[in-house]
Amino acid sequence: MKVARYKKEDDITYALGATVVMEYLNNRPDLVAGVILHPKFSSEDTIGKIEKICSERKIPLETEEKPFNILSQKENCFVIGVIRKVGGQLASGNHVVLVNPSNAGNMGTIMRSCAGFGILDIAVIPPAVDHFDPKTVRASMGASARVNIEVFETFDDYRKRFPDNNIYPFMLDGSTLLQDTDIEEPFSLVFGNEATGLPSDYSKIGRPVRIEHTDNIDSLNLPIAASIALYASTKKIFSGKA
Amino acid sequence: MKVARYKKEDDITYALGATVVMEYLNNRPDLVAGVILHPKFSSEDTIGKIEKICSERKIPLETEEKPFNILSQKENCFVIGVIRKVGGQLASGNHVVLVNPSNAGNMGTIMRSCAGFGILDIAVIPPAVDHFDPKTVRASMGASARVNIEVFETFDDYRKRFPDNNIYPFMLDGSTLLQDTDIEEPFSLVFGNEATGLPSDYSKIGRPVRIEHTDNIDSLNLPIAASIALYASTKKIFSGKA
Repeated sequence: MKVARYKKEDDITYALGATVVMEYLNNRPDLVAGVILHPKFSSEDTIGKIEKICSERKIPLETEEKPFNILSQKENCFVIGVIRKVGGQLASGNHVVLVNPSNAGNMGTIMRSCAGFGILDIAVIPPAVDHFDPKTVRASMGASARVNIEVFETFDDYRKRFPDNNIYPFMLDGSTLLQDTDIEEPFSLVFGNEATGLPSDYSKIGRPVRIEHTDNIDSLNLPIAASIALYASTKKIFSGKA
Repeated sequence: MKVARYKKEDDITYALGATVVMEYLNNRPDLVAGVILHPKFSSEDTIGKIEKICSERKIPLETEEKPFNILSQKENCFVIGVIRKVGGQLASGNHVVLVNPSNAGNMGTIMRSCAGFGILDIAVIPPAVDHFDPKTVRASMGASARVNIEVFETFDDYRKRFPDNNIYPFMLDGSTLLQDTDIEEPFSLVFGNEATGLPSDYSKIGRPVRIEHTDNIDSLNLPIAASIALYASTKKIFSGKA
């Protein structure tokens, strides 16, 4: 199978590592264009599962070392999935909205938390990191196969599509504390850029929320803030399950 | 100033980037053995602050390009701090306990959240990643200058030193949900390894807690889980500040 260093304009991206590839094979086999095994990959159990799904789904499967030298700097990557990139369209309901996210790993970690807390629809407002970047896919631990991501030209475009969503912009100077905020469904949890946060005019939209912390730090890491917000917003949903 | 690729047995570590170095200069100038500026660093405001503290504290300050080629792969690093490594000793009170943490970036992100939520004492149970690793220091955004880290030989050694702490091991099969748990001070929030979690015998210690999530994911990312626990455990402290 021919692979090349990933570029944003490509039609395909790469899932690096057995865990991530298995997530795609189990949940979105329709997106898997091929799977490559490292000649030294020795987990017979995993190889068996991969062979079974690839055979059933007629997904090309090869064993070859060279693609790993091209795509993976990590020593612990023994499986590569070639993944078709398909644009998403948000369903109505609860959303996370990322305004100008800039870091591929952070984007992936947020996807993982979103999938974990059952929020499967993520809106992205550019400029933004490429959410198909193999670094994002890997950081998501394959949650990228579960979540639905749509890029909107502007935040206004997003709002026009979902006028009934309650908007909660997370800002360092948000007027209410998260712990004192009743997040009402359908909700949109809105987060800004890692370094600069949300532009100040977002404070006029919806109900600005802040996660209080000491002045020991300037801000929480973006995926941390988003995940705390997801935990607080969804815990009602999980309450019955104790 | 002579620098060399960091090794665990060194007496010094490196703070990479202006933000991280400023945290050390502002909070722990006693630990700063030297500061190196990149010849292309042009932020006069920051340079002025660095020069002032270095002059007051008699900290060697040099402008030189070569150390950046040795220490920093990142293009956006223009300041290096040479930091003395000093062993910590936990104060009594609330703690985070990391059992077998294996990833330097995760360790740093946890330090940042701990500092943010005012929990300044972190116990580490080996085998564990080196908490002085420059990657850890950088991921902490300089919170490593604020938190106090002590490595204990075993979890039992930790418990013997702090017998009055209420132990909350975070486990995927914890018997109570975090949201239904009243975390009582002084508390110890205990987290296991990224891949394997806590050994099952931790379920007999204290009150095992779980952060409920859907089965879309195997687990939350470790710093995410720790930060959600920190948020939930400290929000009482912040409640009066709204």
